[in-house]
Amino acid sequence: MAETNRSMKAAVFVEPGRIVLDERPIPEVGPGDALLRVTTTTICGTDVHILKGEYPVARGLVVGHEPVGVIAELGSGVKGYHIGQRVIAGAITPCGQCYSCLGGRQAQCGGKPMGGWRLGNTINGCQAEYVLIPDAMANLAPIPDELTDEQVLMCPDIMSTGFAGAERGGIKIGDTVAIFAQGPIGLCATVGARLCGATRIIGVDGVPERLAMSRMLGADVVINYKECDPVEAILEATDGQGVDVAIEALGTQETFENGLRVLRPGGTLSSLGVYSGKLTLPLDAFAAGLGDHRVITTLCPGGKERLRRLMNVLAGKRADLRPLVTHRFPLDRIEDAYELFANQRDGVLKVAITP
Amino acid sequence: MAETNRSMKAAVFVEPGRIVLDERPIPEVGPGDALLRVTTTTICGTDVHILKGEYPVARGLVVGHEPVGVIAELGSGVKGYHIGQRVIAGAITPCGQCYSCLGGRQAQCGGKPMGGWRLGNTINGCQAEYVLIPDAMANLAPIPDELTDEQVLMCPDIMSTGFAGAERGGIKIGDTVAIFAQGPIGLCATVGARLCGATRIIGVDGVPERLAMSRMLGADVVINYKECDPVEAILEATDGQGVDVAIEALGTQETFENGLRVLRPGGTLSSLGVYSGKLTLPLDAFAAGLGDHRVITTLCPGGKERLRRLMNVLAGKRADLRPLVTHRFPLDRIEDAYELFANQRDGVLKVAITP
Amino acid sequence: MAETNRSMKAAVFVEPGRIVLDERPIPEVGPGDALLRVTTTTICGTDVHILKGEYPVARGLVVGHEPVGVIAELGSGVKGYHIGQRVIAGAITPCGQCYSCLGGRQAQCGGKPMGGWRLGNTINGCQAEYVLIPDAMANLAPIPDELTDEQVLMCPDIMSTGFAGAERGGIKIGDTVAIFAQGPIGLCATVGARLCGATRIIGVDGVPERLAMSRMLGADVVINYKECDPVEAILEATDGQGVDVAIEALGTQETFENGLRVLRPGGTLSSLGVYSGKLTLPLDAFAAGLGDHRVITTLCPGGKERLRRLMNVLAGKRADLRPLVTHRFPLDRIEDAYELFANQRDGVLKVAITP
Amino acid sequence: MAETNRSMKAAVFVEPGRIVLDERPIPEVGPGDALLRVTTTTICGTDVHILKGEYPVARGLVVGHEPVGVIAELGSGVKGYHIGQRVIAGAITPCGQCYSCLGGRQAQCGGKPMGGWRLGNTINGCQAEYVLIPDAMANLAPIPDELTDEQVLMCPDIMSTGFAGAERGGIKIGDTVAIFAQGPIGLCATVGARLCGATRIIGVDGVPERLAMSRMLGADVVINYKECDPVEAILEATDGQGVDVAIEALGTQETFENGLRVLRPGGTLSSLGVYSGKLTLPLDAFAAGLGDHRVITTLCPGGKERLRRLMNVLAGKRADLRPLVTHRFPLDRIEDAYELFANQRDGVLKVAITP
Repeated sequence: MAETNRSMKAAVFVEPGRIVLDERPIPEVGPGDALLRVTTTTICGTDVHILKGEYPVARGLVVGHEPVGVIAELGSGVKGYHIGQRVIAGAITPCGQCYSCLGGRQAQCGGKPMGGWRLGNTINGCQAEYVLIPDAMANLAPIPDELTDEQVLMCPDIMSTGFAGAERGGIKIGDTVAIFAQGPIGLCATVGARLCGATRIIGVDGVPERLAMSRMLGADVVINYKECDPVEAILEATDGQGVDVAIEALGTQETFENGLRVLRPGGTLSSLGVYSGKLTLPLDAFAAGLGDHRVITTLCPGGKERLRRLMNVLAGKRADLRPLVTHRFPLDRIEDAYELFANQRDGVLKVAITP
Repeated sequence: MAETNRSMKAAVFVEPGRIVLDERPIPEVGPGDALLRVTTTTICGTDVHILKGEYPVARGLVVGHEPVGVIAELGSGVKGYHIGQRVIAGAITPCGQCYSCLGGRQAQCGGKPMGGWRLGNTINGCQAEYVLIPDAMANLAPIPDELTDEQVLMCPDIMSTGFAGAERGGIKIGDTVAIFAQGPIGLCATVGARLCGATRIIGVDGVPERLAMSRMLGADVVINYKECDPVEAILEATDGQGVDVAIEALGTQETFENGLRVLRPGGTLSSLGVYSGKLTLPLDAFAAGLGDHRVITTLCPGGKERLRRLMNVLAGKRADLRPLVTHRFPLDRIEDAYELFANQRDGVLKVAITP
Repeated sequence: MAETNRSMKAAVFVEPGRIVLDERPIPEVGPGDALLRVTTTTICGTDVHILKGEYPVARGLVVGHEPVGVIAELGSGVKGYHIGQRVIAGAITPCGQCYSCLGGRQAQCGGKPMGGWRLGNTINGCQAEYVLIPDAMANLAPIPDELTDEQVLMCPDIMSTGFAGAERGGIKIGDTVAIFAQGPIGLCATVGARLCGATRIIGVDGVPERLAMSRMLGADVVINYKECDPVEAILEATDGQGVDVAIEALGTQETFENGLRVLRPGGTLSSLGVYSGKLTLPLDAFAAGLGDHRVITTLCPGGKERLRRLMNVLAGKRADLRPLVTHRFPLDRIEDAYELFANQRDGVLKVAITP
Repeated sequence: MAETNRSMKAAVFVEPGRIVLDERPIPEVGPGDALLRVTTTTICGTDVHILKGEYPVARGLVVGHEPVGVIAELGSGVKGYHIGQRVIAGAITPCGQCYSCLGGRQAQCGGKPMGGWRLGNTINGCQAEYVLIPDAMANLAPIPDELTDEQVLMCPDIMSTGFAGAERGGIKIGDTVAIFAQGPIGLCATVGARLCGATRIIGVDGVPERLAMSRMLGADVVINYKECDPVEAILEATDGQGVDVAIEALGTQETFENGLRVLRPGGTLSSLGVYSGKLTLPLDAFAAGLGDHRVITTLCPGGKERLRRLMNVLAGKRADLRPLVTHRFPLDRIEDAYELFANQRDGVLKVAITP
């Protein structure tokens, strides 16, 4: 890298309530690392939790975990890539070589809860001009030429997470599925449910624009929970049978509980939300523990194989997630982007940030 | 049932080379049975094997195993249905109560190979005005009002079989899949692969019309094996990596072998064809037994839950298989239909027979 | 059946607090039923809930759901069995022919929560001289000659339930497993965990005799929760890693919560208990929903294939559950048996009742 | 490492028919490697294929892929280990970071058939005083103090392979399993089948000593194929039903075919052998492709998580494979060991080689 350019702009967590654009040194590249020049990134709901001080990270940390970029430098041990190559890395960057990773639990890398989530959490993230990707061999996924940055921008986190909600829920051909909340992750879960073969998909939210997007992306039926009791509506829509799989995509007692209340006996609640406060299982809906239910939580899967598959979905025209990008900002204006996104103003779903 | 109408027309296997329309008594209904008045049925490739004497059945048997009909009479033990109800039953009619069925192997009902295939095989079938469905409680699936007879005509056999090829192959989001032969079952496997989330589907056949249909129903790429070596073409199309899952839908050494030859290490060959003669595993493609391959054979799944799910796919507009019905005949002309279908004349895919 | 013997003794739920031995008519046999002359049965914890009025059943119901007996009469539609044959039936008696059963959810037969539990719940049970088994074809499992009544007495419920806790937990070779509560079901889960390949099994209870039994039946380590904090002890015993699978076998907030607290990220809590009151998920142990955890509840699997497999385990000398039978009573003294069992006096685990 | 000791003794493949002990330079350690001082190793059937020229490797290659040793040197990028630590590595040494590894197909590392098998195949192996382990972070598994070298000597290959035959066969509680050939791998498959819950295990071989060992390690029934037709004998022993899972552990047409011939409809043939020549599927046993059969091949799973689990099995006293070590040689006499092992003289099962 050019010596004359050793500092970069980056969005830094200063203290609860303040993420600011600042100057930071460009990271040094270790043997297993890759340095990406970030070309596009975005803001996640989790970043807003960090901003608000609801999820603790170290002060001074560069935030952001959804990088699209170009390889600027490769560590000595990183083979099979070249400088200038367009790549993405996941929000979750597993090492691939620990007991958890080798056991197929890459998101829990190192055997610690959420251990695979490093970018913008335990190491500097990608809302910056450059980002260092650890264990680059396991994490750099080349972008097919035919896909633009914005097309793949959802792959690192929300597409991977939302799809995993459908996959880990065990959705199969012929299933009826209800998805609670149709924000970016819930919408991706809707797309994922459809790709898994669900033949009846019910999207629930309280924002008409999101329900419209839900229909556009694959829901057969949408329910505005502000206009009716979604549990009653779903049971009625299923002749009282309930759904095979419910996906929770918000992280509240209400959506979690409603997910259980609409399940048929033997059904699965696939939970994606981040919960706070208390979470209670409604025993009546849960058949007092005798309903053969499954409650499954999922953290965003990472690693380059996952990203390769997700980009295949896009390249194969099985899904188009570009409509989720509703706003665009240069990195210089990321503070404005946070303001918009944190307050969910102007119908925002996802923002694209371009350094 | 009216006493004045105790005989019916039926297509009967007389001897190799001869299936003829004849008069047969209308079946007596036992406690667990249902009598259907057949409204639509079709001819299967297996029926042609019976016609040619390649698959042995008893002389005098009424053939056919794909019934769409109306309930004409119910056994004393059959609850939850009513006379006049539109229903289908599967080619496979499991009892639901034997060790195999309770163990989830309904197609192998009774623990005998293909034990679940009774209609037109071990008991009289449905190319007739009436057909008796055994174990009716497990096998009668009501047709949703919005679906016509022709829409559900593929459910009893080829849709169930073709989809099962995709399902048992373990296809998941992001997979690349090759399907060898694009006859009716291969085409249904193509649709099924897409519903399971395959993001790259390669259809192989030698008939241009079938390849065109393959594209229409979901293949991304089609290969005419008469114009190039399909193994080379598929390896080239996958950068030498091979496919995650290959589906065999014909029943020949060549398609079976080609399926193995295009598999990536760790891949699955899902086999649907009925083989005759000899079947050899090519050891080079099979990594001499060390490639972590899986070869999985599948007989059409049956039972009303399966049929319910398949009809959900149609009602949910996830697939439309009506284009497979290329020709229509009244039952009176079924001998002509056999002649056409057995010789694959006039671009025939499936025929609809209406008594 | 002999006309001279049309009444029988049976344990009847009269009102909360009262299950009494009474005279009842011997059941009439319908086409799909079998009448068993009960030779041995037992009392379940659930029966105690019924006795106490904690689980509602109709007044006048004959209780009991764990029958070992001899076929006394067969319905006209029941084939493949003979009068005098020794058989068991499960606590859960699925029909095998409804959508749930055909979909592999036999315990939720009919699509209703716990729909497969009929004996001693929605129809008369087996703490009686005779019991009617519905859907006999799906439910009568012949007892191998070499097994005694007492050897197979645990098959209908607690062995099936406990083993299912291990199976549905996905235990595999090399797993570390903790089992909370070592009553009859927890002990069977311990045996099941061992049969599934768990290589480190930790049994938790507060009763020294049960802990001793736990060791005898397969636990490697036992923890008396009255003497130490079981969560701390398990984390210490696993070098802070936690267990792969925790099995809950009691039905309390404490055991459920402790099960979650000892799970490694990506681990599974397999829940067997019947809960009352409120059930809360501890978010810290649950990684706020991001730990890739699974919580799976299981009702006793039924049907003759399940019972056949369980008896294979006994006949193959893979497990010997006879030590669980600590007390024996004639049916005439069943009220005494309830008194002993409900109060867990005298180190009772299970009682054998012989009409 | 001491500069004065830069060469070592190693068993080298010279040409077909000749593996000789020779002097070789001690390997240089790269950033991701570890150098092991080998304390114990063994000879595999595959090494004999190499010796005979039946499996091609480069002339001059150090052979052997089953290392037990002590860490002599660590690459700069290898963390969490220390010099002098007792470890094993697997026959298969996956990188953990390629698409195949991240997709759970570690044995096919790099996407090439058998790509994970590097030691003694594509890089120098461990029948030597020292061996270099690539991707050490993913492959070094510390040996628990309580286990001796000989106790863990089977973990790198035959225990992992044999167990995988049982695991990938999907064996579950109550299954009947037949295992064809009771050499070292077949014996490990027998142990693995028992650990997976098989309740009836039938071992087949032609050598009385191996059948005796089979019984000792877990078979319920043993069949000497020289004394009777094993297919007939197995069908008779299972009342004509056949087995749920057959494991092939030799690599011949006969064992492969017999495995299929004893399967019940819906059963699985789990194949471990290395085949040569031609392999034919017997269509009658295969139900012409309609039997819902599965044929699954498996290469030895590797990686430190796998090894950790296998050593758990030993430490937890679930299996004791020491009886498999029938002969011991110093490395200096490895040529004698090959002579004994290749000719299967003196009842040899496995030899321990100690440098």
